[in-house]
Amino acid sequence: MSHARADQRRRACPTVRVRYAETDQMGVVYYANYLVWFELGRTEWLRETGWTYREMEAEGLALPVIEAHCEYRLGARYDDHLEIRTSGRLVSPVRLAFDYEVVRCADGAVLAVGHTVHATIDRSGRPVRLPARVTELLR
Amino acid sequence: MSHARADQRRRACPTVRVRYAETDQMGVVYYANYLVWFELGRTEWLRETGWTYREMEAEGLALPVIEAHCEYRLGARYDDHLEIRTSGRLVSPVRLAFDYEVVRCADGAVLAVGHTVHATIDRSGRPVRLPARVTELLR
Amino acid sequence: MSHARADQRRRACPTVRVRYAETDQMGVVYYANYLVWFELGRTEWLRETGWTYREMEAEGLALPVIEAHCEYRLGARYDDHLEIRTSGRLVSPVRLAFDYEVVRCADGAVLAVGHTVHATIDRSGRPVRLPARVTELLR
Amino acid sequence: MSHARADQRRRACPTVRVRYAETDQMGVVYYANYLVWFELGRTEWLRETGWTYREMEAEGLALPVIEAHCEYRLGARYDDHLEIRTSGRLVSPVRLAFDYEVVRCADGAVLAVGHTVHATIDRSGRPVRLPARVTELLR
Repeated sequence: MSHARADQRRRACPTVRVRYAETDQMGVVYYANYLVWFELGRTEWLRETGWTYREMEAEGLALPVIEAHCEYRLGARYDDHLEIRTSGRLVSPVRLAFDYEVVRCADGAVLAVGHTVHATIDRSGRPVRLPARVTELLR
Repeated sequence: MSHARADQRRRACPTVRVRYAETDQMGVVYYANYLVWFELGRTEWLRETGWTYREMEAEGLALPVIEAHCEYRLGARYDDHLEIRTSGRLVSPVRLAFDYEVVRCADGAVLAVGHTVHATIDRSGRPVRLPARVTELLR
Repeated sequence: MSHARADQRRRACPTVRVRYAETDQMGVVYYANYLVWFELGRTEWLRETGWTYREMEAEGLALPVIEAHCEYRLGARYDDHLEIRTSGRLVSPVRLAFDYEVVRCADGAVLAVGHTVHATIDRSGRPVRLPARVTELLR
Repeated sequence: MSHARADQRRRACPTVRVRYAETDQMGVVYYANYLVWFELGRTEWLRETGWTYREMEAEGLALPVIEAHCEYRLGARYDDHLEIRTSGRLVSPVRLAFDYEVVRCADGAVLAVGHTVHATIDRSGRPVRLPARVTELLR
């Protein structure tokens, strides 16, 4: 995927305030919590398609994570205000991925980057294609 | 309930090692995590009755928490080895409670005490009585 | 404290969107997570005094939790939009408490109520009085 | 690194019992929690070197995560008994990695595989070499 394409991809940018619960004794956010923020990013990305993940599940479609990756550059700190910049892309007809950047609002510093890959399955666990209204947004 | 009775109550005493994830930037365990340890305590208490919570749920019985309480005396620290001393008692025919003590194994210090109260419900959410084989252990 | 007083108490009402990470296999939010939301409530209550908890800690004052209590009425669900209604009160010169209601924004249902009690300590762990600018807001 | 080498690498294999808190409404463990188990794996790997992470930190050395990766094959379920097979390797003089397999004890199924990469830093955040007694175990 070229940078030009990436720039054109639709983005969701929810913000979070770092919770005390998310810090550890090193004084920064514990590393697993970035994956929770990634979840918030893709939840908002989906909400903005007009089809929430909650509705998706109610209609029998699920997007289980099959791969997660994160690179940590700078530690997020308690009470930091962060933006979770999120974009989606289709990996195969039954698989999609989201790319994330965790950005500190105060100065624009990129604290972490990562991605997740998801299968698209129905209630019985079988792979299914995403509806066209979603895949159109993933091009 | 008299102390004599309390002493006679059946106890489960699972142990946990404090995880880095459970600490916060104050250098001690974040307060909500004690409730997770309480869950481990009652899970082991139930396992020792010969009927695990997993089986209970599979058979359509659930024990949702309706009240939780914890008093914090000394902070648990990363890598501490702790014992979650747990005993159960019947509050009503359709309600039970568990009492907990979080004890530091190294010196026997009681770091926290607390309790949880649970409804006993069936799959449709209606209150049901616990089977006799469990209530007998709660006397 | 009379109800009249309670009504007059200053409140903070931050909102949260329930995260997938916060649910459990019962399909509702795991009970320990309400204590994390309580933390958000008191963080915002403090922020609105003009003195954030982050600044407070930087200046050497901490508010460790010494007691937490929660009553659960209705389960919060994934993607629910919730308001954490929070008010503070002084319990003693070196101890304060916060009261919380977790309210579902869609219909105003109170899902849970609870409180936390905090010691006010300095860097060495000794009890200290809160500054007047904070205690004035706690009357 | 050849498979022959991998097979010869020293391993730690702590076990965990899946907590209710770790499940989500899909009925399996929430994906971020595997990273918490990875932490348990490397903690035990280090403990078996005779130098715990707790001691390491007390002596001014820290191993912040700079990269985490996980592939999810089968969902872990509540109360599952799991083994976190962990081995370490040196990536550079000031960087080490751990490889993990999450194995279900009941049938040996590999539920997930992953790795983390860590910087080795001193109290001031500067890269430092690990002591020989640790690096010897990483060959």
